[in-house]
Amino acid sequence: MSDRREFHDLVSPETAHEAIASLDLAPEPESVPLSDARGRTLAERVDADIDVPGFDRASMDGYAVRARDTFGADEADPVELDRIGAVHAGETPTVTVEHGTCAEISTGAVMPDGADAVVMVERTDEVGDGTTDTTTIAIRTAVAPGDHVMTAGADVAAGARALGPGTRLTAREIGLLSALGVDRVPVRGKPTVGIVSTGDELVRPGEPLDPTRGEIYDVNSTTIAAGVAEAGGEPILYPHAGDDYDEMERLLRRAADECDLVCSSGSTSASAVDVIYRVIEERGDLLVHGVAVKPGKPMLIGRLDRADGGESAYVGLPGYPVSALTIFRTFVAPAIRRAAGRPEPPTATIEGRMALRERYGEGRLRLMPVGVLAAAEPSDGDADDPSDEPEAAPLVYPVDKGSGATTSLVEADGIVAVDPDTEYLDSGERVTVQLFSPDVRPPTLLGVGEDDPALNRLLDRLDNPRYLPVGSREGFRRLRDGVPDVAVTAGPLAREVEHVELGGWTREWGLVVPAGNPANVDGLADLIDRDLRFVNRPTDSGLRRSLDDSLDELAGDRDVARRSLTETIDGYGLTVRAFESPVRRVLAGDADVGLGLRATASRLGAAFVPLGEQRVVVRAAPDRAERDAVQELGTTLTDIDDIVRGLAGYST
Amino acid sequence: MSDRREFHDLVSPETAHEAIASLDLAPEPESVPLSDARGRTLAERVDADIDVPGFDRASMDGYAVRARDTFGADEADPVELDRIGAVHAGETPTVTVEHGTCAEISTGAVMPDGADAVVMVERTDEVGDGTTDTTTIAIRTAVAPGDHVMTAGADVAAGARALGPGTRLTAREIGLLSALGVDRVPVRGKPTVGIVSTGDELVRPGEPLDPTRGEIYDVNSTTIAAGVAEAGGEPILYPHAGDDYDEMERLLRRAADECDLVCSSGSTSASAVDVIYRVIEERGDLLVHGVAVKPGKPMLIGRLDRADGGESAYVGLPGYPVSALTIFRTFVAPAIRRAAGRPEPPTATIEGRMALRERYGEGRLRLMPVGVLAAAEPSDGDADDPSDEPEAAPLVYPVDKGSGATTSLVEADGIVAVDPDTEYLDSGERVTVQLFSPDVRPPTLLGVGEDDPALNRLLDRLDNPRYLPVGSREGFRRLRDGVPDVAVTAGPLAREVEHVELGGWTREWGLVVPAGNPANVDGLADLIDRDLRFVNRPTDSGLRRSLDDSLDELAGDRDVARRSLTETIDGYGLTVRAFESPVRRVLAGDADVGLGLRATASRLGAAFVPLGEQRVVVRAAPDRAERDAVQELGTTLTDIDDIVRGLAGYST
Repeated sequence: MSDRREFHDLVSPETAHEAIASLDLAPEPESVPLSDARGRTLAERVDADIDVPGFDRASMDGYAVRARDTFGADEADPVELDRIGAVHAGETPTVTVEHGTCAEISTGAVMPDGADAVVMVERTDEVGDGTTDTTTIAIRTAVAPGDHVMTAGADVAAGARALGPGTRLTAREIGLLSALGVDRVPVRGKPTVGIVSTGDELVRPGEPLDPTRGEIYDVNSTTIAAGVAEAGGEPILYPHAGDDYDEMERLLRRAADECDLVCSSGSTSASAVDVIYRVIEERGDLLVHGVAVKPGKPMLIGRLDRADGGESAYVGLPGYPVSALTIFRTFVAPAIRRAAGRPEPPTATIEGRMALRERYGEGRLRLMPVGVLAAAEPSDGDADDPSDEPEAAPLVYPVDKGSGATTSLVEADGIVAVDPDTEYLDSGERVTVQLFSPDVRPPTLLGVGEDDPALNRLLDRLDNPRYLPVGSREGFRRLRDGVPDVAVTAGPLAREVEHVELGGWTREWGLVVPAGNPANVDGLADLIDRDLRFVNRPTDSGLRRSLDDSLDELAGDRDVARRSLTETIDGYGLTVRAFESPVRRVLAGDADVGLGLRATASRLGAAFVPLGEQRVVVRAAPDRAERDAVQELGTTLTDIDDIVRGLAGYST
Repeated sequence: MSDRREFHDLVSPETAHEAIASLDLAPEPESVPLSDARGRTLAERVDADIDVPGFDRASMDGYAVRARDTFGADEADPVELDRIGAVHAGETPTVTVEHGTCAEISTGAVMPDGADAVVMVERTDEVGDGTTDTTTIAIRTAVAPGDHVMTAGADVAAGARALGPGTRLTAREIGLLSALGVDRVPVRGKPTVGIVSTGDELVRPGEPLDPTRGEIYDVNSTTIAAGVAEAGGEPILYPHAGDDYDEMERLLRRAADECDLVCSSGSTSASAVDVIYRVIEERGDLLVHGVAVKPGKPMLIGRLDRADGGESAYVGLPGYPVSALTIFRTFVAPAIRRAAGRPEPPTATIEGRMALRERYGEGRLRLMPVGVLAAAEPSDGDADDPSDEPEAAPLVYPVDKGSGATTSLVEADGIVAVDPDTEYLDSGERVTVQLFSPDVRPPTLLGVGEDDPALNRLLDRLDNPRYLPVGSREGFRRLRDGVPDVAVTAGPLAREVEHVELGGWTREWGLVVPAGNPANVDGLADLIDRDLRFVNRPTDSGLRRSLDDSLDELAGDRDVARRSLTETIDGYGLTVRAFESPVRRVLAGDADVGLGLRATASRLGAAFVPLGEQRVVVRAAPDRAERDAVQELGTTLTDIDDIVRGLAGYST
């Protein structure tokens, strides 16, 4: 680790932005078929090559006439003209309208020679006795030259400016280009972004994983690839480089040759970082190493030489997924958007207010990942009314305190930039959130608390909820602090918090053992009195709370302190995260007994020793009880019989 | 035309919405590779199949220890442990940490057996004299069990709910799915929408066009196809059916068999409508024919039977491009979005204020196409601040009074729904605009007036301007009425309007004749005194105004009224739309002389007879002069020498 670089020369975020702006990411413009042009950006002005329409065109069904022939005609005193033929859309006229004659014409048809106006069919009658070949038409209105005629070029004239450079092509621009007969369009190229991931431990999703070797799935490559595509770039994933210098150098150089920008994300291995340094210093130019932001300090910005003498841009992102996405979104995506000619949509930024006070004061820019709770209900168009009270602004709360957890990716909706000299953000303070993606849709309901299989199914019935399974005790604490709408608790609670009860159910809990109960576990006493390996839930969990209450009872029966019992349980302190986790450990042979639910044991094929039932209760914060999303949850809770019936040991 | 249907039974817009909602457009869910999942919507809940991480993982570089061994250690009194080996990321540990020992470990590596905590490398020192094989590590801090260790499943536990059904997949969700090793994702299917266009006169863009037959390019098929894709559907364009009954029936039935929804757009031919009626009535079910909206009265909603016994939805759209897009956006796109599980993004709707008073009062819902002028400048995140003054709301003005022009497609940004009982919308009144597409970016500058080649190039240098070439006189009138930011005028003006002059240039105008000037045209008198076919510009044009002034002068010289001169000019009343149009008519042999610019003659290879110079002036409305976009235009105008140099007869 002696070669490890230190980030002594941190540059300011502004300098980092400038460094990226100084790199040329923009590819050559390209020509694409009109059918593929939607969403692209015009590279140059498009002028009309043709007149639209290309001919004088009837804009009504009726009769093509010489306007002069109709002068003086009215309902009382129609003019009669001889019908000399008909012109339909898509036909070349074969008649010439002379004085005293007319031709039947349909909308869209070419005006025949001689005619300069159209009389609507509704203002005409066929007359005549059928004895002659010639039909006579009574014209009951006068028309002026040009009436109901669209002259050639009246819509678009050849030579006119149709669309300017930089125009984003949506349905309507595609329509105008179609009218001009354009079938290939000059558009800004999509910057190609090569994504190189390093680290022996990374495995691509879909490939087998060996956790005993410490392998994990590669999160950053796919996340950044999706971010590149969102910003209008073309991501190219390069195979894993491992930590081999030659292989990594080969890959970086290949990516530089093939791409406008090369991104790598921070390897956990020091040697990988060293390789990147060496390659850039030998075959490129390192502009920035280290930026005074949190997170993102180890960001690299530079250039890589190409075999053809040109150069590619290079950005090195931090390794934690939320940090990588934060730095990508803040520094890299805007540069890709500029190169692609695709400005950031207004939805990428929203205004909100802090749900609680957040201290800071580290003296450098903090890009704080935040969750957003849409305060106003989605509406049919009134949502953006600027006359809304500021209180209707979405609630914003910090998430991910640098844990590196991938779940933070979906618990955070975006970033609040906190100035270096900010000491704290006050509760209620207005903040601007840069959403991770313009398509991010902040949840309309925020729930916290116990994890439970019935709850998982219930959540499926709601529109865009967010639920953080932090456990009953922590959920209750957060409900008190005012961020979530609802908390779900299981089992006994140490104290009360004001709330509105929305509903709930009862679940059976106990000890989960392998199928057939090979150790003949009979109850709680076996954990204490026999040599069994146990696996527990954390203290925030409602299951743990009920277990501890039962242990208290047993301790009372035996007239000892609970602690003297728990000390004898091998694994009492070994806690795992979710309600299925202890059962899975038991089934994997890592433990003999786990704390769990009958429903889980039943689903995963384990045996179950019941210890009791506990109530799961959904509680709303009193000031949120009237929100539409909370009301919808309450209504959904009244009809969960089918969910409860499908889970062993559950009842309402 | 006797079979022509009348729309006697107009239903309400609400009924039309309900009829479409009653149709089943939703295809089966499908499974897509993760790399193709961005932008799609999850069809079902995704639970974690694996623990993340799948092993107890070091979250720092340092030494894996038994926490108990470090109790009491501090800077003054370190504990010394024997280093028994090292574990790197991606390796299976080969050591067991016993009492008194430690193992070097890197971030991300598997915790070796026996160790329950990591001491950061920064809090350790290597000690020892190098005389033994064993390295001793001084630990300068105490750690607790679990410190700097992420336990297996601590990020995501197997069995936990990861993402709910209906989740839109953006970069961050792709990241979480990657962490779970998911490489195929169950997503909502894309509704397939077959687009059938009818009419003998329609030609696909890119194919040759015969204007003498009245052929025009098909606008609606490509526009609606792009709209379908924007809404999350999969458009399928069917070949043109022409007006042949059997062919059209075959096509409609094939489209119904292959698609969830079939759309046709109003044919201009009555027989095509009849065919559609007949096919639906024989092989389907017509739910709605005619809706009480303007435009869109002739909208059809129904079902088409499929060969396999199922059915497809059918919607018939009006024929004018803006009407077709309006009805599609209002009635059809929301149904496609629902079926695709892709809710309308908030950008699809904006709030604005009427720029002028607009009368209505027709007693049915009006879907009024409008242009939008972004009033606030694009900002770096403050644009949506709800505390902005209402005066900052974008200006909204009606466009396209049913002209059927395709240019209206890009002059309108969206639709304002005007209630049947609304008599007028007042100037300044707040209105909600449904943008045609979420990606529509209303212009930041609205200009009107003369068309000019230098102006076209100038506009290329601005960010997202809109310019309506309505002519100098009409442009000046509109500037007075308060809608545009700037008007561009050429030549003399009849009266003054208060304005701020931003800049301008001078252009040479005159008579354009075929190359070599075969008729030896010498000046204006030739038009009057000789038998030449002339082609003029409209009275709103500045070119025309200068021509008429010269004719006035000539009439004065001859002591006659101008009218007596113009009556003798063959084609004085024949006016064409754009500055190139007369020249193109001359070059096509349709006229001997055209009114035009030296620059145009030079560009298109015609000869030119100069008549004078006229000044082109860019004028800003006084209340808009301080807007950023207007200031940018002013700055751009100070540096147009290169543009002017490139145009014959131009000077600044």
